[in-house]
Amino acid sequence: MNGHIIGLGVGPGDPELLTLRALARLRAAPVVAYPAPERGPSFARAIVARHLSPAQIELPVRVPIEAAPFPADAVYDAAAAAIAAHAAAGRDVAVLCQGDPFFYGSFMYLFARLGQSHTVEIVPGVSSLGAAAGAAGWPLAAHRDVLSVLPAMLDDAALERRLGACEAAVIIKLGRHFPRVRALLERLGLAAGARYVEHASLASERVLPLDHVAGAAPYFSMILLHRRGEAWR
Amino acid sequence: MNGHIIGLGVGPGDPELLTLRALARLRAAPVVAYPAPERGPSFARAIVARHLSPAQIELPVRVPIEAAPFPADAVYDAAAAAIAAHAAAGRDVAVLCQGDPFFYGSFMYLFARLGQSHTVEIVPGVSSLGAAAGAAGWPLAAHRDVLSVLPAMLDDAALERRLGACEAAVIIKLGRHFPRVRALLERLGLAAGARYVEHASLASERVLPLDHVAGAAPYFSMILLHRRGEAWR
Repeated sequence: MNGHIIGLGVGPGDPELLTLRALARLRAAPVVAYPAPERGPSFARAIVARHLSPAQIELPVRVPIEAAPFPADAVYDAAAAAIAAHAAAGRDVAVLCQGDPFFYGSFMYLFARLGQSHTVEIVPGVSSLGAAAGAAGWPLAAHRDVLSVLPAMLDDAALERRLGACEAAVIIKLGRHFPRVRALLERLGLAAGARYVEHASLASERVLPLDHVAGAAPYFSMILLHRRGEAWR
Repeated sequence: MNGHIIGLGVGPGDPELLTLRALARLRAAPVVAYPAPERGPSFARAIVARHLSPAQIELPVRVPIEAAPFPADAVYDAAAAAIAAHAAAGRDVAVLCQGDPFFYGSFMYLFARLGQSHTVEIVPGVSSLGAAAGAAGWPLAAHRDVLSVLPAMLDDAALERRLGACEAAVIIKLGRHFPRVRALLERLGLAAGARYVEHASLASERVLPLDHVAGAAPYFSMILLHRRGEAWR
């Protein structure tokens, strides 16, 4: 009998934001896979490290996350094959996903390779959006608001057009795009009221008015914006 | 010393999707407030009912959720006053929020009344979006996708314009708007590939291709849409 494959949302970073379901599935899985940089520790693994046992087989999926504009096909092909082999041998495989598995996560590259041939259980997780909004005391959206999530890598014209079609926006994955995105928001008159959040829910979390941010932004950072009525703030 | 006020995300409905932090804060709170209909049980309370103790003071905030297009100011004024009185007496108050406190929740009406005068801790929760996407095996957004969350109450022109400014969309809170929204998506050629999810993560959960849905949609239902490249599917 085949093992199960589980896309396991582990939340935004604070180990206490793991769900009861995620903890139960994690503890029961003989194999634990997770994304990791080419060298060094995995952030997703670190979130749940206290719950891992030496008896579990670990399967790091090493992808250069920041560098690659597109998924590394060979890496995901090999990881999917390794996961499928464990499942064929009857071992459940929990694939750790930072945040929520289906919200801008790399898990979908594995899901694209395994979702047709295997039953994949998804354990949804707390996304970094909710954590950032909570840290900033910033309701994301209410009632009739359209909320748009905008990757910072979009060019200025795309960002400007799409900001015009929502009441609330979150610009995610700032990293090296931060200076350009901030300049755009300043030009559009949107910078003054915006909030900047990096590493939401972690010890290194920072929340600042956008115009108080000095220096570079990490990849895991975002800008929160909204307008009530006609005025953005 | 004042008690703390906690906006406690309890997730989309499955009690196992509670976080460890939410469970700890819930158990420690001498007062537990929650939204409820004018008559009958509270959905948010039901999610955590197994963890409540008879020693906890319960504070239902009874608002006619489906009927009211705007928040019932008098109800929230009274609830905020009751919560503030408990806090002033040194009692922590956990306010249960279905899903995530700052994602289209009624908690923000209390936060608007208490957030300036009190320190409010937010415990982010799993949103119904992640739960619905997981149930449907439907990655919400990846990489450069713009993801927009569209309340179904928006009129056809607004929905059509905003669907044009994203790669991925979720139309939430369908309820009585469902027949109109489905007709719009059919007219736009978007219905064929869309997925319908109701009561994500609950025993009553249903996932269907949009064109297979017969009958009415409950309030807690949504439509998932996305396009890859230029074609919506």
